[in-house]
Amino acid sequence: MAAAEFWYEFASIYSYPAAMRVAALAAARGVALVWRPFLLGPIFAAQGWRDSPFNLYPNKGRYMWRDLERICAAAGLPFRRPEPFPQNSLFAARVALALEGESRAEFSRKVYAAEFGEGLSIADRGRIAGLVAELGLDPQAVLSRAGNDALKAQLRAECARAAGIGIFGAPSLVTEDGELFWGDDRLEQGLDWAAKG
Amino acid sequence: MAAAEFWYEFASIYSYPAAMRVAALAAARGVALVWRPFLLGPIFAAQGWRDSPFNLYPNKGRYMWRDLERICAAAGLPFRRPEPFPQNSLFAARVALALEGESRAEFSRKVYAAEFGEGLSIADRGRIAGLVAELGLDPQAVLSRAGNDALKAQLRAECARAAGIGIFGAPSLVTEDGELFWGDDRLEQGLDWAAKG
Repeated sequence: MAAAEFWYEFASIYSYPAAMRVAALAAARGVALVWRPFLLGPIFAAQGWRDSPFNLYPNKGRYMWRDLERICAAAGLPFRRPEPFPQNSLFAARVALALEGESRAEFSRKVYAAEFGEGLSIADRGRIAGLVAELGLDPQAVLSRAGNDALKAQLRAECARAAGIGIFGAPSLVTEDGELFWGDDRLEQGLDWAAKG
Repeated sequence: MAAAEFWYEFASIYSYPAAMRVAALAAARGVALVWRPFLLGPIFAAQGWRDSPFNLYPNKGRYMWRDLERICAAAGLPFRRPEPFPQNSLFAARVALALEGESRAEFSRKVYAAEFGEGLSIADRGRIAGLVAELGLDPQAVLSRAGNDALKAQLRAECARAAGIGIFGAPSLVTEDGELFWGDDRLEQGLDWAAKG
């Protein structure tokens, strides 16, 4: 079965519609997806950015919010800007990495729905625990796993791997033959490529 | 008839496939296009960039060239990177502005085909004169118009207008109700919007 990696960052706005769409798009093409949460912070910092580019470049930022409104309206997704933006995504990323397979995908969609569908804080540990509970899992066990040193090291390794692949933004799709597709608007093209093998 | 403005910069790589596609896409939707050449330099300089972002951010730059290769291959367009990149686009922009209507559109496609289809320099005045001659126009008359002070002032005004609209990259499509769509990959969406009125 063809496969592809879906790299996403919880603070990234374009990762929101992508996360909500990607599973159905992959299934329709017979592509197995690996969900890979990571952090853009270290990658942005390496190129001198200490904030989201949407905050650093106001005209681009204004455009992006409007673009997202249009994209979400067309996709039938609720959209509400969280404050502050960007949200601190470290804790949610650790919890996502502490989950596997379909639980990770489902948890990730729940995080995005809360953050950009309802405009809620994802740095709130109680809220994250509640989303884990909605999966029918034990929040205490998952959050404990998310907080241990091995998992922290694993997330750092994922970020290093993303940088090594040449990932510079989110969402990014990586195919088995090493092609990189950046952005919600490249999902179909990337999955078509993955399906062709 | 519905209308839209197509803002493009000759140094911009994504403006190349967009310029080659946009006339047919607009015609299919009954949208009248106004071709508006401008310069991104002043806009980039205002946000602290003194080079193309594809040169300033190497990972993003590598990705963009590969992305363009894939886009051009899918569209059946030849693609060859010009050296240096970005090309100095000032003279070509002045000449485009000195032309009107279909001559401007046709000249602009010829500039892009030379620059990114064949990898040729567009700062070469003899080449630009040759492209004007291919339109059946008198190169000397057009180049003379392109060099006068009124036209230089007109191009500066176009750049100021672009900045005023909130344009931060090229290509950009602007609809009559003031919606902005950025990028070759937003042409269809922007023209659909324009056609709805």
